[in-house]
Amino acid sequence: MSDPNPSRAIATLVEQQRIAAFSTSHAGAPAASLVAYALDAPATGALLHLSDLAAHTRNLRHEPRAALLIHEPDGDPRADPQTLARLALSGRVARIATDDPDYAAARASYLARLPHAGPRFAFGDFQLYRLAIDDVAYVGGFARAARLTPAEFASIMRTGAPGAGETP
Amino acid sequence: MSDPNPSRAIATLVEQQRIAAFSTSHAGAPAASLVAYALDAPATGALLHLSDLAAHTRNLRHEPRAALLIHEPDGDPRADPQTLARLALSGRVARIATDDPDYAAARASYLARLPHAGPRFAFGDFQLYRLAIDDVAYVGGFARAARLTPAEFASIMRTGAPGAGETP
Repeated sequence: MSDPNPSRAIATLVEQQRIAAFSTSHAGAPAASLVAYALDAPATGALLHLSDLAAHTRNLRHEPRAALLIHEPDGDPRADPQTLARLALSGRVARIATDDPDYAAARASYLARLPHAGPRFAFGDFQLYRLAIDDVAYVGGFARAARLTPAEFASIMRTGAPGAGETP
Repeated sequence: MSDPNPSRAIATLVEQQRIAAFSTSHAGAPAASLVAYALDAPATGALLHLSDLAAHTRNLRHEPRAALLIHEPDGDPRADPQTLARLALSGRVARIATDDPDYAAARASYLARLPHAGPRFAFGDFQLYRLAIDDVAYVGGFARAARLTPAEFASIMRTGAPGAGETP
């Protein structure tokens, strides 16, 4: 990660990466899957659109705690993969029902980022979920780690990535 | 994923991707981090080289079950990320002590794949671990999923990716 400003590096990472690894648990055993995600407008939650048939969705019914890992792609085989930037967002996942007052805004945020999902909103077995971020861990490279509060993360994401005028 | 042969697609995915998202759990809550990995020679385990100081390593001391998610990079913003190929390897993680009879072979397999890690083998706070694969779940795209036995996965990986002569 070349950007020495962690705030800007975090904002860029989240803006550029549409997918995350999704950690859930099944009868106490960690499970891993892949999801597309979008942040909600206040940047205090990550929005997911999950199939009722997927194992991660079944896992959430028993254990709503989960974590998302967002990382730089491993683009250069000559580079040490240990230096890739990555961000883990942990929290509790809840479904946003279609009659929830937040549903329309959440759906709009999700589709603004992930327009391919549009047709799946017509499927009866896909539902919108929100991971309420309660822990943020960032690793910008080897031995470069930072823990952020959810409020700090939300502030970084609302300010945006480039030209945010933040000082390192 | 364009390759209609799942065996070849799985072998290619694992051969091309050096990194995986790592699902562990902390006091019952799912946690997510990033690791580099290599398969061991029999392809029945995934080798990890972990820092004693990392949260995932502390998590494993209390809950040795874990899962790795290996996925295609999200290279085309016009494509639906739901179609990316991904593979989850689940199992139990154990440390390979330096006096273990399998240590030298495991270290060699790891370094053949991840030569940058060489200097870290001299650090006192990095240890070699093996996730003994007991479950393999592959998703080759939207609604294209397969569950493999560990023996099937090992056979695929030992046969290798291209020109393996497998029939779809």
